[in-house]
Amino acid sequence: RINEQRLWDTLMEMGDIGGTEKGGCNRLAGTDLDKQSRDLFVSWCEACGCTVEVDKIGNIFARRPGINNDLPAVGTGSHLDTQPTGGKFDGVFGVLSGVEVLRTLHENKIETPTAMEFSVWTNEEGSRFQPAMQGSGTYVGRFDLETELNKTDVNGIRLGDELERIGYLGEMELGSRHMGAFFEAHIEQGPILEDEEKAIGIVRLGQGIRWYNVEVVGRPSHSGTTPMHLRKDAMLAASAIVTEMNAIALRHENGLGTVGFMQVWPNSRNTIPGNVTFSADLRNPKPDVLLTMHEELVAFCEKIALEQGVEVNLDPFWYFAPVEFNASDDVKAATEKLGYSHMDIYAGAGHDACYMADLVPTGMIFTPCLNGISHNEAEYSSPEECAAGANVLLHAMLEASER
Amino acid sequence: RINEQRLWDTLMEMGDIGGTEKGGCNRLAGTDLDKQSRDLFVSWCEACGCTVEVDKIGNIFARRPGINNDLPAVGTGSHLDTQPTGGKFDGVFGVLSGVEVLRTLHENKIETPTAMEFSVWTNEEGSRFQPAMQGSGTYVGRFDLETELNKTDVNGIRLGDELERIGYLGEMELGSRHMGAFFEAHIEQGPILEDEEKAIGIVRLGQGIRWYNVEVVGRPSHSGTTPMHLRKDAMLAASAIVTEMNAIALRHENGLGTVGFMQVWPNSRNTIPGNVTFSADLRNPKPDVLLTMHEELVAFCEKIALEQGVEVNLDPFWYFAPVEFNASDDVKAATEKLGYSHMDIYAGAGHDACYMADLVPTGMIFTPCLNGISHNEAEYSSPEECAAGANVLLHAMLEASER
Ligand SMILES: NC(=O)NCCC(=O)O
Ligand SMILES: NC(=O)NCCC(=O)O
Repeated sequence: RINEQRLWDTLMEMGDIGGTEKGGCNRLAGTDLDKQSRDLFVSWCEACGCTVEVDKIGNIFARRPGINNDLPAVGTGSHLDTQPTGGKFDGVFGVLSGVEVLRTLHENKIETPTAMEFSVWTNEEGSRFQPAMQGSGTYVGRFDLETELNKTDVNGIRLGDELERIGYLGEMELGSRHMGAFFEAHIEQGPILEDEEKAIGIVRLGQGIRWYNVEVVGRPSHSGTTPMHLRKDAMLAASAIVTEMNAIALRHENGLGTVGFMQVWPNSRNTIPGNVTFSADLRNPKPDVLLTMHEELVAFCEKIALEQGVEVNLDPFWYFAPVEFNASDDVKAATEKLGYSHMDIYAGAGHDACYMADLVPTGMIFTPCLNGISHNEAEYSSPEECAAGANVLLHAMLEASER
Repeated sequence: RINEQRLWDTLMEMGDIGGTEKGGCNRLAGTDLDKQSRDLFVSWCEACGCTVEVDKIGNIFARRPGINNDLPAVGTGSHLDTQPTGGKFDGVFGVLSGVEVLRTLHENKIETPTAMEFSVWTNEEGSRFQPAMQGSGTYVGRFDLETELNKTDVNGIRLGDELERIGYLGEMELGSRHMGAFFEAHIEQGPILEDEEKAIGIVRLGQGIRWYNVEVVGRPSHSGTTPMHLRKDAMLAASAIVTEMNAIALRHENGLGTVGFMQVWPNSRNTIPGNVTFSADLRNPKPDVLLTMHEELVAFCEKIALEQGVEVNLDPFWYFAPVEFNASDDVKAATEKLGYSHMDIYAGAGHDACYMADLVPTGMIFTPCLNGISHNEAEYSSPEECAAGANVLLHAMLEASER
């Protein structure tokens, strides 16, 4: 079993890097704080004898050799970047559960049949740079490396430049780690495990996600002199689309629709907005339902453009198809061996494991979080809840290594 | 008569300060560009023998002595600040018509019965700092000086500090100029004069304006894991209010409703917005109708807060009551003397003259602008249209000075 207190202490220590007054964390990808958290991870892994490598999109891999190093390794990992108003657990818990597994193996001098790999993936959150799971998606070949390194944040700063600046633009080839299985522990980020009073969620599926950039182009003009019928108000059209995103979600079972990001131009209170750009995020566990939702959004944008005489440019720049996890049985076996209560569940959020599932048998372990709240500074999981997840991770990894 | 070409050349020279690629102007109040435009105005006035003073809120007064300097002076003026995507005429045309009147009197060595005053008012636009007509409103005593100097822009920079930095925080007492009449020439900023093919609008009324800051407080949480029924989505509620602002305007004759400014927090695409702040601008020429529109907005905000479980804080921080211009007959007499076509009109926008009307008999002269477009880089008035307005200003000022 892992050491509950030690795991908790590492979570709190890591959480101090970018820690907020309200107990959350603001540690965006590619920032100085991201560097600090990566450095701390690397130092912890090296202290347990790992060798560390960084790939061309900044993903970090720490390797603990096994008995037979020709066999494919067993991997785990998650991310250290957070939302601007994120918590101390989303992603970080998965990375530090890995560190805790490593320390448990190290202090008990356990020799595993295969090597074990502990990883940190670049920009999983998709907050500062898009899309989400950028590091893992690029690693597995879903995204083009150059395109991703050239992505810019709202201030026009390149991801590639930021990685170089913080010392995490590595040389290792993408997709080049030899792994036989991959596991990721993560807080659920939703209310189900808590409601059902289960310690562990065996994640069977990651739901589908569609991300869009939407631009509405109207005509800036004076708020006090432009009659209503002569306006081309980009804000009014954008608001109609926000309202429709919500309606689309409500029309479909398990549908979700969110506009989280918006920028208004020229953003002056007595100028009718000439340009509004915003994000759209549609999700559903069923790909056909998600496609219908997508089609409804496309049709609505066309309708609003016609009705309001504005231009609506909808850029569907990311589609993440629902993914099934095919190493879930290792997770289930480990959970039952340890005697934790559990249930099958699907992931509402995207995770690095979702992309790793392209390359290797992959499993995900969910743990409850308070009130199902995540992407919020109030995000919380108890020490016991965290420990349960890390124990399942340890045993799922051992199981896979022994096979 | 004034010199049409010279007026046009000063308009173009001034428009180069903050001039944009699309032929507009971006010269926000209190910026280095504002300083440059003020310095140019001062140099032009001094070249014609004026003495220049600056008051405690940064308004500039240039005085040309008359025959009897104990008599109250005749004033004119407008503003040099622009919208972020403004044109070269809004405000600037009024200031430079004054400069052109001054130059015409100077080169013809005309001695006027009273002194003439040429003024520039601080932050008329209300874009960077609120409210609009801040300089004139403070001058006439509608706003408290300290409160206004302490107002900050979105980056937290104080107006008082900016005025000091650019050298325009003066010593002169507010309201201390001795004037007997005030005239302001301005482009109409709307489509009516152009539609009716009139050269001059005799402005009888400035319509009522109500400005609000609206804050919606929801709960930030994950866009992929928070079921629709558990959300408190500040963006969704804000969008409902934007849509209602439009509906309120359409329900009332001559009603206008605009949301021009919005900020979203944390503004991350997979976090449901926890906080959205935005502006609301309601206008009507009739105070009772404007009050009804206000009440409808208040009621709607309360309803949305209840329905969506969010907090809606509506701060009605500025009410500008409709104002009648009681020196309009001087404007009409000058227009008829010069033989320009004209019509009575009301001002959709607020103007510095609206506040000056508190202190002295005041008149406004409107000139047409292309397609009625303002607060847009495409704003345009022809040299002849500008000249007509400046000629009417000259003769209205002479008329009032002689009386
Ligand atoms: N785990 C997590 O919050 N991932 C962010 C990507 C997403 O939006 O689902
Ligand atoms: N003239 C002008 O555009 N004034 C700005 C104040 C307003 O919003 O009406």
